Amino acid sequence: MELKQELEAMGCSAKLAARRLAACPTTIKNVALLAMAEALQFRQAEILQANHKDVQAGEAKGLSKALIDRLTLTQERIISMAEGLRQVSALPDPVGECLGGVIRPNGLDIKKIRVPFGVIAMIYEARPNVTVDAAGLCLKTGNAVILRGGSEAIESNKVLADILIQAASKAGIPSGAINLVETTDREAVNLILKMHRYIDVIIPRGGAGLIQTVVENSTVPVIETGIGICHTFVDESADLAMAADIAFNAKVSRPGVCNSMETLLVHRKVAAEFLPKLLERLAEAGVELRGCVETEGLHPLVKPANEQDWATEYLDYILSVKVVADLTEAIAHIDFFSTRHSEAIVTRDYDNARRFQQEVDAAAIYVNASTRFTDGFEFGFGAEIGISTQKLHARGPMGLVELTSIKYLVSGNGQIRQ
Amino acid sequence: MELKQELEAMGCSAKLAARRLAACPTTIKNVALLAMAEALQFRQAEILQANHKDVQAGEAKGLSKALIDRLTLTQERIISMAEGLRQVSALPDPVGECLGGVIRPNGLDIKKIRVPFGVIAMIYEARPNVTVDAAGLCLKTGNAVILRGGSEAIESNKVLADILIQAASKAGIPSGAINLVETTDREAVNLILKMHRYIDVIIPRGGAGLIQTVVENSTVPVIETGIGICHTFVDESADLAMAADIAFNAKVSRPGVCNSMETLLVHRKVAAEFLPKLLERLAEAGVELRGCVETEGLHPLVKPANEQDWATEYLDYILSVKVVADLTEAIAHIDFFSTRHSEAIVTRDYDNARRFQQEVDAAAIYVNASTRFTDGFEFGFGAEIGISTQKLHARGPMGLVELTSIKYLVSGNGQIRQ
Repeated sequence: MELKQELEAMGCSAKLAARRLAACPTTIKNVALLAMAEALQFRQAEILQANHKDVQAGEAKGLSKALIDRLTLTQERIISMAEGLRQVSALPDPVGECLGGVIRPNGLDIKKIRVPFGVIAMIYEARPNVTVDAAGLCLKTGNAVILRGGSEAIESNKVLADILIQAASKAGIPSGAINLVETTDREAVNLILKMHRYIDVIIPRGGAGLIQTVVENSTVPVIETGIGICHTFVDESADLAMAADIAFNAKVSRPGVCNSMETLLVHRKVAAEFLPKLLERLAEAGVELRGCVETEGLHPLVKPANEQDWATEYLDYILSVKVVADLTEAIAHIDFFSTRHSEAIVTRDYDNARRFQQEVDAAAIYVNASTRFTDGFEFGFGAEIGISTQKLHARGPMGLVELTSIKYLVSGNGQIRQ
Repeated sequence: MELKQELEAMGCSAKLAARRLAACPTTIKNVALLAMAEALQFRQAEILQANHKDVQAGEAKGLSKALIDRLTLTQERIISMAEGLRQVSALPDPVGECLGGVIRPNGLDIKKIRVPFGVIAMIYEARPNVTVDAAGLCLKTGNAVILRGGSEAIESNKVLADILIQAASKAGIPSGAINLVETTDREAVNLILKMHRYIDVIIPRGGAGLIQTVVENSTVPVIETGIGICHTFVDESADLAMAADIAFNAKVSRPGVCNSMETLLVHRKVAAEFLPKLLERLAEAGVELRGCVETEGLHPLVKPANEQDWATEYLDYILSVKVVADLTEAIAHIDFFSTRHSEAIVTRDYDNARRFQQEVDAAAIYVNASTRFTDGFEFGFGAEIGISTQKLHARGPMGLVELTSIKYLVSGNGQIRQ
């Protein structure tokens, strides 16, 4: 009960701050972002000290190497977080943009204006940099933010939030604009998911388990992000050298992120020629290979894949490989197992490229390129709060614009409706 | 369990139909809409007969006059439903529109394309015309639709759906594009709310109770619609004759709809001059008046308003009236009780007009006009599926464009990420 009151007080002050933030001049927001960047670098010793506690605790708890890596902050990483804030400061402010308007025959002047959401809650896991990114992007878009990071990063997040909040308020940002939930009590998440009285949107960032919990229990509108079971289909007509480079890049360049490839689909007519060389190259790169029966026959290191493999986001040096009869079977497989994130075809056939892009239902659909490009920076947005895998409001990489809503301003001179 | 299987089978076939519908040429969709319009008029006798059953049952159940009126179909109403389909047929098809694109420095060609959602579920109440409107708007936007109307209208809806489905499939629309849930079992709604495997978006239309149930229990993304506790604030500087006409129109022109006024706020400095005449006029129009203490003193028919009145969407000939000290108190009252639908100020003060439009958080914010104009047709959209009162994806009147999502088509020539 006490926790509930605490969180609702936070929601309430965030809502009040959001009102004032919505009218906050761009220059003040930009100066605040630069001040936050400075403060992060000025107080980096504190950050590293707190982060060291988190890392030690994590190692004691026996967290995986990958998780420890995500959790760990270094001087370089602090500088790049600060750099991120400076980049956001330099981006155009979407708030107040007029998206169109009309004067109706009765003289009513209707304008569609971009406005902040109000209060955004971010629920995420071990990455402390999300604390900084989210605070910066929400501030730039005039949204108050409630941050709920993973317990593994709590010490780092406390210091980061303290630094950001102090720097922002010194720069004239209303208090309550940036909020960190400091308790690691899991109940806090369940309570936040029901706070639709105060929170306008919830954006979860993390593993499938977290996303699922949020989607299934939230009464606040949610933007689903970042689960990526991404496929690459090598068509019969593909330039096989290009296909090998694209597949290798999609799997190996950064296996731990959502836009990396989890399943490779290969047209039967080219499987025997294409797969042995590529599978060897992947194996040498340390990729564990799981394949269909036909794939098993093409390389000694391929272990049999079971049904679960096609439905798994490994986020690791593991790849499932399936030989398919044709484009239709490839699209059917993707349609069944895809998380609608990023899907690719490598082909030289115009009709197949066109059909793949039209029939596959995903946020980003590639022809002859690596799925790894699904990213706010690679798309040229200059920033990214996450990658939406739902169809409502935002789909694909979300930049500043995706953190805004609209309102209609209607100006008249006495119009009444007949 | 049987019901669950039945609904999932429906969801599955809707999803399959949606795939094909997404690629359906505009001309086929338009012809189908015209055929549906023809069929409605050709088979109107059946419709009226079925509707008569619903009305009789409703009267036997003792439904309110207002509800019976919404439920009742006449030849004129059937003609206007058909007219609606013809208008939708004539509107431009949003599907496939390119919303922009860029060629990145690495040569990747990224295009943002408008696509259908996929499967939309409409959950609504006694109005049979929603069955026709929703089927038409979803078809035009390439979405498959699952219709779940109120039990009061079940006989009418069965016939309407049968007519629409037959006409559409004759015109070449894939079967499964239009679906009606024929059971009146309330459990069906709960099951639909969990079918995120098949349904992309749920749009509830009806009273606060229905909207609440959907929002709180759905695991499918929801677009909240149509609860309107709308205010009109008469400022000190208002043209009082204009203010009286606007307030009268906002309350009396059609009290049963969501964009009508429920609460009138009046600046203290003009209350004594403004209210008595207006209250008399409203009383003569049959409006029950509930007011704050000051308002009570200004007209004998004013009954005391309690706290609940400020939070009630009457949808009836009832108005709550409050005298406020100034714009700030008006905005504070609106901020607390508003459902963020439509809010109006009547003023001659430039700064107050500007401040009201900036500080009030609602879908449509009016200066010197009636809130009754918040409507897809009045806004010039040519159609309306509902009025969104949430900030995610759509806000305010929703036309065809609001029934679509986007996807990114990325075309390359071998790009891989460093």
